[in-house]
Amino acid sequence: MRFLLTAFIGLFLSCTQNLEKASKEVRVDLEEDEKVVKSIFDEVLRNGEAYSNLRHLCKVIGPRLSGSPQAEQAVEYTAEVMRRSGFDTVYFQEVMVPKWVRRERAKAFAYLSDTRVELNVCALGNSVGTEGTIRGKVVEVTSFEELEKLGKENVKGKIVFYNQAMDPTFIRTGRAYGTAGFQRWSGPSEAAKYGAIASMNRSLGSSIDDFPHTGSTGYKLNLPKIPASAISTRDAEMLHELLEKEPDLEISLHMDCGMEGEVLSHNVVGEIKGVRDPEKIIVVGGHLDSWDLGEGASDDGTGCMQAIEVLRIFKALDQKPNNTLRAVMFMNEENGLRGGKKYAQLAEENREFHVAAMESDGGGFTPYGFGYTLPDSTMEERIQLWKPLFERREMHVLRRGGGGADIGPLRNQNVPLFGLYVDSQRYFYYHHTSDDLFEKVNDRELHLGAGAMASMIYLIDKYGLE
Amino acid sequence: MRFLLTAFIGLFLSCTQNLEKASKEVRVDLEEDEKVVKSIFDEVLRNGEAYSNLRHLCKVIGPRLSGSPQAEQAVEYTAEVMRRSGFDTVYFQEVMVPKWVRRERAKAFAYLSDTRVELNVCALGNSVGTEGTIRGKVVEVTSFEELEKLGKENVKGKIVFYNQAMDPTFIRTGRAYGTAGFQRWSGPSEAAKYGAIASMNRSLGSSIDDFPHTGSTGYKLNLPKIPASAISTRDAEMLHELLEKEPDLEISLHMDCGMEGEVLSHNVVGEIKGVRDPEKIIVVGGHLDSWDLGEGASDDGTGCMQAIEVLRIFKALDQKPNNTLRAVMFMNEENGLRGGKKYAQLAEENREFHVAAMESDGGGFTPYGFGYTLPDSTMEERIQLWKPLFERREMHVLRRGGGGADIGPLRNQNVPLFGLYVDSQRYFYYHHTSDDLFEKVNDRELHLGAGAMASMIYLIDKYGLE
Repeated sequence: MRFLLTAFIGLFLSCTQNLEKASKEVRVDLEEDEKVVKSIFDEVLRNGEAYSNLRHLCKVIGPRLSGSPQAEQAVEYTAEVMRRSGFDTVYFQEVMVPKWVRRERAKAFAYLSDTRVELNVCALGNSVGTEGTIRGKVVEVTSFEELEKLGKENVKGKIVFYNQAMDPTFIRTGRAYGTAGFQRWSGPSEAAKYGAIASMNRSLGSSIDDFPHTGSTGYKLNLPKIPASAISTRDAEMLHELLEKEPDLEISLHMDCGMEGEVLSHNVVGEIKGVRDPEKIIVVGGHLDSWDLGEGASDDGTGCMQAIEVLRIFKALDQKPNNTLRAVMFMNEENGLRGGKKYAQLAEENREFHVAAMESDGGGFTPYGFGYTLPDSTMEERIQLWKPLFERREMHVLRRGGGGADIGPLRNQNVPLFGLYVDSQRYFYYHHTSDDLFEKVNDRELHLGAGAMASMIYLIDKYGLE
Repeated sequence: MRFLLTAFIGLFLSCTQNLEKASKEVRVDLEEDEKVVKSIFDEVLRNGEAYSNLRHLCKVIGPRLSGSPQAEQAVEYTAEVMRRSGFDTVYFQEVMVPKWVRRERAKAFAYLSDTRVELNVCALGNSVGTEGTIRGKVVEVTSFEELEKLGKENVKGKIVFYNQAMDPTFIRTGRAYGTAGFQRWSGPSEAAKYGAIASMNRSLGSSIDDFPHTGSTGYKLNLPKIPASAISTRDAEMLHELLEKEPDLEISLHMDCGMEGEVLSHNVVGEIKGVRDPEKIIVVGGHLDSWDLGEGASDDGTGCMQAIEVLRIFKALDQKPNNTLRAVMFMNEENGLRGGKKYAQLAEENREFHVAAMESDGGGFTPYGFGYTLPDSTMEERIQLWKPLFERREMHVLRRGGGGADIGPLRNQNVPLFGLYVDSQRYFYYHHTSDDLFEKVNDRELHLGAGAMASMIYLIDKYGLE
């Protein structure tokens, strides 16, 4: 062990001479840290509880749309898990959340000259309903530019069908999601601009299959709110072919869904008090709400259960943190981010000092490391000194860029943000679909992620970032 | 692109000054190589055929135990795929293989004072049958040392139950497999030494579940061949508890299986001729045979389909290799390695020169990079120069150690060996079980592996290793 670590450090310092100064200043003791990090991973791989907790969250409670009874059951359940795990404090933060409801599954048909074909569709989150069934011709586009070219004369009274596939050549699938996301996020309002009666976008998914992917859409002010739906990737390809044969075919769409005001909900907060600087906080979290089609397993039950697991590991190892460690289950990431905003607002009002904030919201897949967004680039030097501890465990990524939606609002308070960075190949097969199930999560992968998070938090807690 | 690559090279060279000489000698042009490597990954991520070929192999043909009709169907099928993909030459190598048959599923019961409990078991490959049903008391051990201590007086006439779990704290799961493997490989003969009537080992698996894991056992000469079985991990834990309550409980075991001599089978070889040095060969392969309980998807349908895909990518991109590229479907890796041995024997007899050999046999999971075993350590310097091309694609591992069972015999001919190194977290959930199914393979992960293999072969082909 000793030899190995010396070798690591030697190699590392020879590559990063400009970091030696920072290194000496903080006296990084990788040999001692390796012992602690090993104990963290051993604990989570032997006795990790995130997986069995996730099973309860997914199978007993189920999907947790903001404002739903299940969301509040999840609030109670995670508070109970935190108490059971011996956290020093467990409390709630009140958050008003939008209550959007999907009263029944959407139905759609394509009407051809001689038959009709059912399409796998779903309503997008926040969408208005169709108030009965609507029916119209279809304009297929792959970009807003195409839509603009077509103009009102070709779009008015029709259903706009966005059919831009996620680019499969992006190895980091999140980038493909980002590039294709416009059709869901802004597609409906953009279509309404030209008088469309509804919007239907190709699902944001990595595979060709029958699952429609829901997710938030955002209506722009001063534009009509038209029904917003998503069609499965396989049916998008089929509809494309049908339209080539019969450009005048019509689609019917029936969606019973809509906003029902706002209701009171909660963030759940659990803490282990710091022994040296209890007023300084390291926060780690995921979002407790989920879409309603599946079980919200990979999005983001995994991140929530990992956040709780991080603190449980500290308790199990009797590893007393210098700073207060805080696990937060954020509410309403999916269609409002109210929990994340409320958390940041309270942190500011209460003049809390956050050493760092970390989120896991990319699924409980094998961890590659972390992305970070720092208020001060000198912090990066210190973080890079810890790299050998992760590289030994096949986690090679410590790089700029990353954090999480819920912790994002803390950026205004100059809080360093960390996002667990995981293997992204499978995420967009399940994301926002009825296939986002507990069964798609692997216990070892989930627990390795929690181990990585606990290790990084141990290092931040020990050395600080300032 | 240009800026990025310059940065990469700059960083890299500053870290590896001792490699500069090698770098200059071979004039590595990472910028040009990046273009080719990108075209390889784009091709496989857009148009990869490994996944649909794998579906046929698993779903239409199914498991492919050496000597079975399905194994020969797979020989014909993969030859057909190679021909269809436009390879220059496709041919067979005759291989005599042992024919072991599992005539029916094994059955076992634990007899308690008031009831009997069925156990999930299977026969190990190569095992003799029980000739009817055998029944006996049980001795539980976790090591050969324990067995030796017990000695003949405590073991004779009983069933030895090896119950050593795979160590969950190994992050590379193959290491845990290696450490716990003794009970399957040598357990039966070791038990026979002390007069046991049968052996039953805890399945070599990463999870607690109901799947018994088969796999080869090896009988030692001059010791009685006793029936060799494996019990699922969950039932191993249960049996342990039952034995604590009732140490004298008996187990019955019924296994109808055994060797039926040897039969003629085949390696399948497909080639793209080199344009500069057609007599020099780069071989890439997987093993076509599989265990019979599942579909042989991750072990090793994935490796076979990736090997074919590598050559298909070269054809699709019209990338003409300097050396001859050869895809080989090795027969009989699981219980004899006859195909790998025969291939090496023929290579020697025909005085073939192999530039390198590569194998994928760790499942079609997200690739991390490669392990290599080199006859000459100076080759390593050159390989390390290519690292930036892989690191950009989240493949950070290029390290010593690795190859594959089938290409292993080529080591005597000083052939540099490469093994695709993949995320290992899920492999031992499926390995050698009825759960080794096509459904467990993800198309993007499989195709990324093929892309990594094709890229490494492109680099070896371009720069050589000498």
